[in-house]
Amino acid sequence: MNTFIAVDIGGTNIRCALFPEVGDSYISIKKIRTENPNDSSDTPNKRLVSCIENIWPKNDTVLGICAAAPGSVSINDGVVLLAPNIPGWNNLPLGKTLEQHFSVKTFINNDARLAAYGEWKKGAGIGHLNVIYFTISTGIGGGIIINGKPLQGDIGIATEVGHIIIDPNGPKCGCGQYGHLEAFSSGTAIENFIREKIISKDPESEYFQNEIPSAYKIAQAANSGNKLAIEAFNQAGYYLGIGVANYLHIFNPSCVIFGGGVTQSGDLLFDPFNVSLEKHILNKEYLNNLTITTAKLGDNAGLVGCVEFLRDIFIQI
Amino acid sequence: MNTFIAVDIGGTNIRCALFPEVGDSYISIKKIRTENPNDSSDTPNKRLVSCIENIWPKNDTVLGICAAAPGSVSINDGVVLLAPNIPGWNNLPLGKTLEQHFSVKTFINNDARLAAYGEWKKGAGIGHLNVIYFTISTGIGGGIIINGKPLQGDIGIATEVGHIIIDPNGPKCGCGQYGHLEAFSSGTAIENFIREKIISKDPESEYFQNEIPSAYKIAQAANSGNKLAIEAFNQAGYYLGIGVANYLHIFNPSCVIFGGGVTQSGDLLFDPFNVSLEKHILNKEYLNNLTITTAKLGDNAGLVGCVEFLRDIFIQI
Repeated sequence: MNTFIAVDIGGTNIRCALFPEVGDSYISIKKIRTENPNDSSDTPNKRLVSCIENIWPKNDTVLGICAAAPGSVSINDGVVLLAPNIPGWNNLPLGKTLEQHFSVKTFINNDARLAAYGEWKKGAGIGHLNVIYFTISTGIGGGIIINGKPLQGDIGIATEVGHIIIDPNGPKCGCGQYGHLEAFSSGTAIENFIREKIISKDPESEYFQNEIPSAYKIAQAANSGNKLAIEAFNQAGYYLGIGVANYLHIFNPSCVIFGGGVTQSGDLLFDPFNVSLEKHILNKEYLNNLTITTAKLGDNAGLVGCVEFLRDIFIQI
Repeated sequence: MNTFIAVDIGGTNIRCALFPEVGDSYISIKKIRTENPNDSSDTPNKRLVSCIENIWPKNDTVLGICAAAPGSVSINDGVVLLAPNIPGWNNLPLGKTLEQHFSVKTFINNDARLAAYGEWKKGAGIGHLNVIYFTISTGIGGGIIINGKPLQGDIGIATEVGHIIIDPNGPKCGCGQYGHLEAFSSGTAIENFIREKIISKDPESEYFQNEIPSAYKIAQAANSGNKLAIEAFNQAGYYLGIGVANYLHIFNPSCVIFGGGVTQSGDLLFDPFNVSLEKHILNKEYLNNLTITTAKLGDNAGLVGCVEFLRDIFIQI
């Protein structure tokens, strides 16, 4: 039997799954921690190789490997340019390393872009040809499908959808720049909003007892009526509306998909988002026939994206 | 002989050209004013039809017509949704009108997008697969080529590249929204900057003797050392750098082309632009191997885009 191997590399965990050539379910899956806290010589790179070895089929053929990496990837040569959450992963020739070790064609791509591919092929984007997928968690990542093809860019570093300036006077982003969409509407941005209020001793911040809460806890506080927490989500939703209006004017998609933990806060985020989107859109044509929806594949979007990506490539071959 | 007809519709002039099936030069060209000031019953629509009739070949076959319209176009059905500079052109079924009148396959598309197509195929973008073209004049328009295909969007209203918010507290845009790239970096924005200074009686504005100057005159004033005029271009260039950085993060192109009258101001615009772009780019990878250049085809970019678009479609057929 022919098989594919899909790999989702996160800052905390690496997940490897063996998929059949055709079919929705994986044959086997293995999860390991990215770092080994007991052995500093055991690098994420080594652990990734051993995770793949662990699920390598004894009697079947592996046609290809696709790995989703959390950062900028030069897709033509499989080099991870920068993965901020994995120490030492700068200019790492991951594609070549895996290809030499396993003697199998290997593709490396950005994790959010592959999750977008998975959601488009098998999740919330089925049937659409022009899709934008945003994943909103610690940061904001995403992927874009144009006329049935993923936008990748000349060397593969396109679709940094969280890193567009929507207000140069805005807060500092995780990347060091100011006023990016991510700096307004990510989980970190929501947490930073409350952090500032605690530091400035806003009376409403007493609710949090001087402990900087997670975005999840801030959502709970908002649902309990805490005004600052509601304000934090209002700001995130408002700027998300500006960012998405920009993307609609640039891409005119028929489907926008939201994934990632922060989007599970529901109306807290999406009520102010919808008001802002209506306010900032050039005209109604962009919203007519536009589906705005949440992701369907959860944590598996990246793995599904990897295997669908491999299937499309090997069908072309 | 087989021929194509290319039409470039502007707020002031309509230009129609007859092209051979193959070859760079047109066979004949005709220019008329869009409006007839002496006869209000003589609509732009009628004048467009008569302009095409005027160049229609007596003995040759016309395979197709492509018209570049200044506004939002629903490309699948050839409807001009909104052309702000041509009164009455709202929801105008131009494609159907021309197709019925001439009994020839007719395509309508946005003028800046077709100019981008022309510059990519025959001008400054030759040899690149991922290109962003900006035309900066009264407003800011553009077109985007991704992996050798034009970005058009689900119904054809993508690439409104001037209408992205880069500062929600910024000046009012021609479209009515606030803080768009066009509201900072277009010719109109440069003029509005000086207009505000004249209204607020800034001493440096005495140079303009209470007459609101054109962007061209402001460029002359800047070259003569007028501080306000220099400031106007500094602002335009700075925000253009922010906007282009955004687009590089989204598209990772290998070529950016600038066309339109304002870009002829040269270093006045591009010096502050370059400083701003370097400041706002996520990392150097986006600038390595990136060509930033000016357009080559001048006023003919739209006509060339029309005929190249037709050729590509009829080759596919």
